[in-house]
Amino acid sequence: MPDPRAIGVFDSGLGGLTVVHALLQALPNEHVVYLGDTARVPYGTRSAQTVLRYSRGCAAVLVERQVKALVIACNTASAVAVEMLRAELDLPVIGVIGPGAQAAVSTMDHLLSSPTFKGAPRIGVLGTQGTIASGAYPRAVSQLSTRYEVVARAAPLLVPLVEEGWLEGEVPRLAVERYVGELIGAGAQVIVLGCTHYPLLKPIIAEVAERLAGRPIPVVDGALATTENVVQLLSEARIGASPSPPLGTRLKLLVTDLPSGFSESARRFLGENVSEVEQIDLKPG
Amino acid sequence: MPDPRAIGVFDSGLGGLTVVHALLQALPNEHVVYLGDTARVPYGTRSAQTVLRYSRGCAAVLVERQVKALVIACNTASAVAVEMLRAELDLPVIGVIGPGAQAAVSTMDHLLSSPTFKGAPRIGVLGTQGTIASGAYPRAVSQLSTRYEVVARAAPLLVPLVEEGWLEGEVPRLAVERYVGELIGAGAQVIVLGCTHYPLLKPIIAEVAERLAGRPIPVVDGALATTENVVQLLSEARIGASPSPPLGTRLKLLVTDLPSGFSESARRFLGENVSEVEQIDLKPG
Repeated sequence: MPDPRAIGVFDSGLGGLTVVHALLQALPNEHVVYLGDTARVPYGTRSAQTVLRYSRGCAAVLVERQVKALVIACNTASAVAVEMLRAELDLPVIGVIGPGAQAAVSTMDHLLSSPTFKGAPRIGVLGTQGTIASGAYPRAVSQLSTRYEVVARAAPLLVPLVEEGWLEGEVPRLAVERYVGELIGAGAQVIVLGCTHYPLLKPIIAEVAERLAGRPIPVVDGALATTENVVQLLSEARIGASPSPPLGTRLKLLVTDLPSGFSESARRFLGENVSEVEQIDLKPG
Repeated sequence: MPDPRAIGVFDSGLGGLTVVHALLQALPNEHVVYLGDTARVPYGTRSAQTVLRYSRGCAAVLVERQVKALVIACNTASAVAVEMLRAELDLPVIGVIGPGAQAAVSTMDHLLSSPTFKGAPRIGVLGTQGTIASGAYPRAVSQLSTRYEVVARAAPLLVPLVEEGWLEGEVPRLAVERYVGELIGAGAQVIVLGCTHYPLLKPIIAEVAERLAGRPIPVVDGALATTENVVQLLSEARIGASPSPPLGTRLKLLVTDLPSGFSESARRFLGENVSEVEQIDLKPG
């Protein structure tokens, strides 16, 4: 039976709108309620205990809004909270790390099958300090395959570069060179974008990686991998929306703070203007 | 009568330790209790209303700890909360913006008195998005003197550069060039560091400013200006500590979160190791 309820998505800030954008494109009948915890962004520099508490608060808001599935569109929160929220909530919970790791492993499988493959099969991961410190990507990859080593690097400058819209030129190039250079130097054959801000820097990351490695390096975008996962889930659980085109806007945007430059930032991540925004207070926790 | 109580200092994170460092140097008999709201850092991207609420929470913790004076070592919080906290609290409250603006005006007065001074007298300010959007520096300068225009630029990359310890080389140089170049291009004759993280980039800021302007540009450090203000206040209000050297450590450090790399960051700002750290919860509000 079609399920008209929305898909709930949360992130520490607005970066998760890259996942929303991919979801709305892939699922033209679905509605999305997005919660950006902009009053407490970023999660990436906080301790696991704090991120866990914040994630619980975000999930509670979306559950109250009757969502049919929950997407944690934040790598830091996925790293520490996906298992707990799955245990606590009575609805499907999808993080971005599992799908990102799965896509990286599939890409490595494909590379390994090539007769020209050389070197040790290593997956490189870029993420925030919180995500990298959590060790979530190496753990997720090792659960999928024992053939691949993971090399990971925290990349703290990339989020502010994206938030400033500084996506081209010398500064993003040099910052990316510093981070990607270490991954390539350590033998990475694939690079996973372990933060929902990074897809906006994907062109420069791919270009730098290819130049440094001397060959094309696949760059895995967790937002796309997560969307594929949601599409599959809705189909398997038979909770897709009715195929009749929905009325009105398909995105409801909730934020915990409305900082200056909000609209511009939202447009950058979503690729279009945001029509409806509601500011909410989160219960302290 | 000597007053043995500590000076209370708060900031959104650890950047305010640059102010603490200057205070402990200038006041060898005083104790400091520092609160870094590391669970909610940064304040610079949040709305004024949220920053006001957070500042009240931080002040309440320090008042409970019986401090004799309160230093808001965060430009964003100073911009929106100093007047309110002065009205609400029964103790002296010192923000970083007033002293920084005062130091900039004094420096401009001095420059103007030189027979070789050329151009319009303009003060340049670098700060976070929150501080710049608040208009606090132009307001503070205009209260001190109507002779000087203020040109201000948000510099969102400088905080993560400092937090990563990336203080030299091409990336900080290009980022600083982008921000300082706009100020110099707009005719700034003095540059105020309107964020407690920026003193660590002072050498590169001064060097870039001199190169772009073709002459030395004074760079005003709000941490030093604030310290001079506190020294004067303690003396005027006769609430300095007894001149006998205090026993034990003179800094008590409270944080709301202990992120990874905490000790290294704290050392970077304070210039020495941190001995005693206590993690506290803030009342929601």
